[in-house]
Amino acid sequence: MSLPSHVRLVEVGPRDGLQNEKQPISVADKVRLVDDLSAAGLGYIEVGSFVSPKWVPQMAGSGEVFAAIGQRPGVTYAALTPNLKGLEAALEAGVKEVAVFAAASESFSQRNINCSIAESLLRFQPVMDMAQQHGIRVRGYVSCVLGCPYDGAISAHQVAAVACELQAMGCYEISLGDTIGVGTPGGVRHLLEVVGRDVSRERLAGHFHDTYGQALANIYASLLEGVMVFDSSVAGLGGCPYAKGATGNVASEDVLYLLQGLGIETGVDLSRLIDAGQRISHVLGRESASRVARARANTQ
Amino acid sequence: MSLPSHVRLVEVGPRDGLQNEKQPISVADKVRLVDDLSAAGLGYIEVGSFVSPKWVPQMAGSGEVFAAIGQRPGVTYAALTPNLKGLEAALEAGVKEVAVFAAASESFSQRNINCSIAESLLRFQPVMDMAQQHGIRVRGYVSCVLGCPYDGAISAHQVAAVACELQAMGCYEISLGDTIGVGTPGGVRHLLEVVGRDVSRERLAGHFHDTYGQALANIYASLLEGVMVFDSSVAGLGGCPYAKGATGNVASEDVLYLLQGLGIETGVDLSRLIDAGQRISHVLGRESASRVARARANTQ
Repeated sequence: MSLPSHVRLVEVGPRDGLQNEKQPISVADKVRLVDDLSAAGLGYIEVGSFVSPKWVPQMAGSGEVFAAIGQRPGVTYAALTPNLKGLEAALEAGVKEVAVFAAASESFSQRNINCSIAESLLRFQPVMDMAQQHGIRVRGYVSCVLGCPYDGAISAHQVAAVACELQAMGCYEISLGDTIGVGTPGGVRHLLEVVGRDVSRERLAGHFHDTYGQALANIYASLLEGVMVFDSSVAGLGGCPYAKGATGNVASEDVLYLLQGLGIETGVDLSRLIDAGQRISHVLGRESASRVARARANTQ
Repeated sequence: MSLPSHVRLVEVGPRDGLQNEKQPISVADKVRLVDDLSAAGLGYIEVGSFVSPKWVPQMAGSGEVFAAIGQRPGVTYAALTPNLKGLEAALEAGVKEVAVFAAASESFSQRNINCSIAESLLRFQPVMDMAQQHGIRVRGYVSCVLGCPYDGAISAHQVAAVACELQAMGCYEISLGDTIGVGTPGGVRHLLEVVGRDVSRERLAGHFHDTYGQALANIYASLLEGVMVFDSSVAGLGGCPYAKGATGNVASEDVLYLLQGLGIETGVDLSRLIDAGQRISHVLGRESASRVARARANTQ
């Protein structure tokens, strides 16, 4: 029942967040966001994605963003690189850490990246190889770990199999994503128990969406299972509570508030994080999805 | 670490919820809400409050509501009765169960009910006596158990003292309220451990507000501590996420989703509960604060 004394927060707002916002924002605003986040004390920021701007216009200019941010010592600035072309572009931009993305659900893999899970893993092999040649660490995401919009329930053993593959291919950390936010703490603990047989807890991260309001309960459950790394998105970027089809990334502010309440160290300053979230929410012309940010705004 | 097999949900939307909504609604709409809630399977509904309509206009007509609802066998329809006059009115309306309300914080007690904690408990004594004479069960609320807007942190021992008093005066159940929603799971578990030394877990209920997004994590923590009764408010009534000073009652739909995910029985039908919440949200002219209700609306 003991909790970790410290947790590493992986800030995915600039990538996973902004990628899922309808409104593309300027390179300057992205740079400001990333700099605000590092200034708040975040040690790991997923800055962008090297993909075709035809498919993901929100991620256009990721190279320019990398060139313009003020890189702080000790902070990891990462990029999503779904294929070799992406990795080449990332290397050109001086990126030092990348991530790849697989699904735990066959239907989601087919509909999202147009190939089977096995094919997607095959595609990553040359990315892994080239990353290794360049001494670049690769983080692996697994999506739909607690449910799929097409297939419904996903077996924990299926998740474990994909996580194992990513680990075997060289991913140093596997982020387990409840992409549609349907999970609850019992399922989370079962999942971690099963996946934890093959991948040690120290190599697992939790990536929760708050679509059904369960993200913080699931993070607390993960902490009780020994997970020490969590992905979150400042201001809940990527999930507008007012829009249809809201994806609902859990807000970094709310996660940090939970961790602070539990006495867990993160190195992140809550007030500065809230400010960063309020600024980007203003750019997007909408209210922050962080409840902590809203509560603070209401009590000031 | 074992969870309870079943949980009793105390629906406080018609009272604690509507009392904190700016817009008073008609008796007919209140009756419809209560009937919708009992039809959804809720076994305990706090229907209204017998207080001066000068002070709480939202609760005007509680007697009429009691007279008009379709009382289902096995369902408890309760009312808040802060004083003897309130209890007399409740008895006249045929109310079979009532509740009283104390604070764990001196400043909150002074500002909210204009007397000290000790004075408020003294005031309840005649209420308790008369209730006992009429064979009426009394439920006790304690507010600000994890923090006070004026005094900040509240000691668990202070909460235990008030809970003990209420128990000694005859309250069969003590609902511990995180009135401003600032608590996190570590504080919740510590509180339950301390209060649990004097009041058995079977007599404790958790009443969480979601102002900082922590309510479901806190409920999960309470379940791990053996709490089996939770207060919640359909559609998150009482806490409009768009308004300043939102109080943020946790939404019953989100609590039920959590419990269902954990395999815990409640006897409540989620779809009917969501429908009840959507209907009253429509009456109030705003979106439901339940994330589950919003997610379901988005995926239909």
